[in-house]
Amino acid sequence: MINIALLGFGVIGSGTAKVLTDSSAEIAAVVGDDIYIKYIVDLRDFPGSPFESRIIKDFNIVLNDPEVQIVVEMFGGSHPAYDYSLAALRAGKNVITSNKEVVSNFGDELLREAAAHGCRYLIEASVGGGIPLIRPLSTSFVPGDIYEIAGILNGTTNYILTSMTEAAIRGKPIYMKECIAEAQRLGYAERDPSADVEGVDACRKISILTALAFGKLVSPDRISTKGITGITAEDIRSAVARGNQVKLIGRAAKLADGRVYASVAPCEVPPSCPLSHVNDVFNAVLVRGRALGDVIFYGRGAGSLPTATAVVSDIIDIASNIGHQPSQILWERADSLYTDKAPDDGGFVML
Amino acid sequence: MINIALLGFGVIGSGTAKVLTDSSAEIAAVVGDDIYIKYIVDLRDFPGSPFESRIIKDFNIVLNDPEVQIVVEMFGGSHPAYDYSLAALRAGKNVITSNKEVVSNFGDELLREAAAHGCRYLIEASVGGGIPLIRPLSTSFVPGDIYEIAGILNGTTNYILTSMTEAAIRGKPIYMKECIAEAQRLGYAERDPSADVEGVDACRKISILTALAFGKLVSPDRISTKGITGITAEDIRSAVARGNQVKLIGRAAKLADGRVYASVAPCEVPPSCPLSHVNDVFNAVLVRGRALGDVIFYGRGAGSLPTATAVVSDIIDIASNIGHQPSQILWERADSLYTDKAPDDGGFVML
Repeated sequence: MINIALLGFGVIGSGTAKVLTDSSAEIAAVVGDDIYIKYIVDLRDFPGSPFESRIIKDFNIVLNDPEVQIVVEMFGGSHPAYDYSLAALRAGKNVITSNKEVVSNFGDELLREAAAHGCRYLIEASVGGGIPLIRPLSTSFVPGDIYEIAGILNGTTNYILTSMTEAAIRGKPIYMKECIAEAQRLGYAERDPSADVEGVDACRKISILTALAFGKLVSPDRISTKGITGITAEDIRSAVARGNQVKLIGRAAKLADGRVYASVAPCEVPPSCPLSHVNDVFNAVLVRGRALGDVIFYGRGAGSLPTATAVVSDIIDIASNIGHQPSQILWERADSLYTDKAPDDGGFVML
Repeated sequence: MINIALLGFGVIGSGTAKVLTDSSAEIAAVVGDDIYIKYIVDLRDFPGSPFESRIIKDFNIVLNDPEVQIVVEMFGGSHPAYDYSLAALRAGKNVITSNKEVVSNFGDELLREAAAHGCRYLIEASVGGGIPLIRPLSTSFVPGDIYEIAGILNGTTNYILTSMTEAAIRGKPIYMKECIAEAQRLGYAERDPSADVEGVDACRKISILTALAFGKLVSPDRISTKGITGITAEDIRSAVARGNQVKLIGRAAKLADGRVYASVAPCEVPPSCPLSHVNDVFNAVLVRGRALGDVIFYGRGAGSLPTATAVVSDIIDIASNIGHQPSQILWERADSLYTDKAPDDGGFVML
């Protein structure tokens, strides 16, 4: 039996518990052992939950239990998520996270700590929900071949921009505020939508993808970030008139001199680019390699169960490979290498 | 140093040698060792090639050289590709292949032989060229979650159907023969295009994807297969009139009773399905999971360098994990479980 602890029993944590329960037989067949949720750390109570007896408030119980081999951090926010992850790795426990804030700010350090303590730090759920992105970027491409990544990384803003574009196509008036309110009604936007509409969420994700593709972690606060709040009805109308679409694009590229460029900005995307057809809450990431050509990964970038499948794929990866430490590319800090000029527009014309 | 042997120095073999050479430093950094092409087995001579001195005609030299740890089979065709792969696995050598004919007919046996001899049989390049498909299907999803796979798996036929559709949209006459001839001029179709236009190539690929998703290998000759040769100008025109696209779709689904359905057929695809926007020689595969939702992988499904990147990713996987045998789901033969009735049309209306 492989004992794990979940940190956080919210949207992703409860989804993870559900997926692990629903597919327990199939997972055990692949892993060759049962996965058992021994603890769930959450400050709230969940009376009536089938996991009620395993919910605890004190993380130290997890930390001091040598039976726990995998800690799954799904708290969100930097603290205590980062601190608990660091402590778990230093105690030789494998850590899995869905927390893009922690990975984009501390991922280099946590990966180094994992390597130093003979354990692993896996982050598939931190970008793109259920879309397999992190593992393919780490294991399915030829190192050094990728020169650019560009993606629609935030479903909320893509939903809002899609609604505005549809209004423009139908010749109706375009009000961003109404589109945001509609996204909130549908549960696609939070009550305070600023992290999405200001580009903060997309910025954290492009920071992580940059590190995976180029081995260089650029802190999110060093990435030029423009959200969608400045987009006007006229921007949308004139893009539509040219047959194009306005999309919030996170982009990273490796310059010829080895420096890394990264940005988030609304862009006009022509219909020849497959990202222009990615609508509503869907996400998509374009990976460009010299030998590879263009490859795109597409799917729902959020949601309880899709994101939980990414968490569970990391649990299976670790549980299937207990005692084996796959080679891991560490990330360098690259603040000084950051440049605010893209090598070329790659077909994405910034607004 | 990790010694490998390439079987076949054609389009994919020479691309693999090029990618390994161009990215040797970056690959060595990840693997922690150099990859060295010790032999290339090909019946032809390649005077003037930088690999000339390593080209041999006798596979037994590879088989009897204990230094060769990885054999990369890129011959195409069933024989001697299957026989050499089997012999290499029985000699304890890891085998990588780009050969969909061998995998779709003998994959179950070769995976079992690999497991029995403590080595690995990797097949990333057998479907979808450079698009990462095999490794994500094996390692990035929750076992048992996927219930359907549908894809545009053949670039040649997609190019031909795209040309016919564009003619229809422009109100021009539609001649499949001319579209095939144009594809041949551009190097997208072979002189004898029958394996593509009759659906044989797509059938082998859906057979492999079915085995990966559901663990059951249905022999290609048991999969209901219809190519594009019966498509008429009227079929294309009436699909366009309804706002739809005609695509050659390979589909596999797991029925509620555990049986597996698989087929290849031209289908009318509505614009709401992202596969309808996949044009020209591009391929795309839609993976549907109960918890996962819909995920799509998109890219060039063929070509020397894209396919070579898939081969090289398998080489890196094996070379980075020498001495470690990851858990491997074996494939059952499923001829008796095959059913020719789809559970529902999944939005793809067969022509």
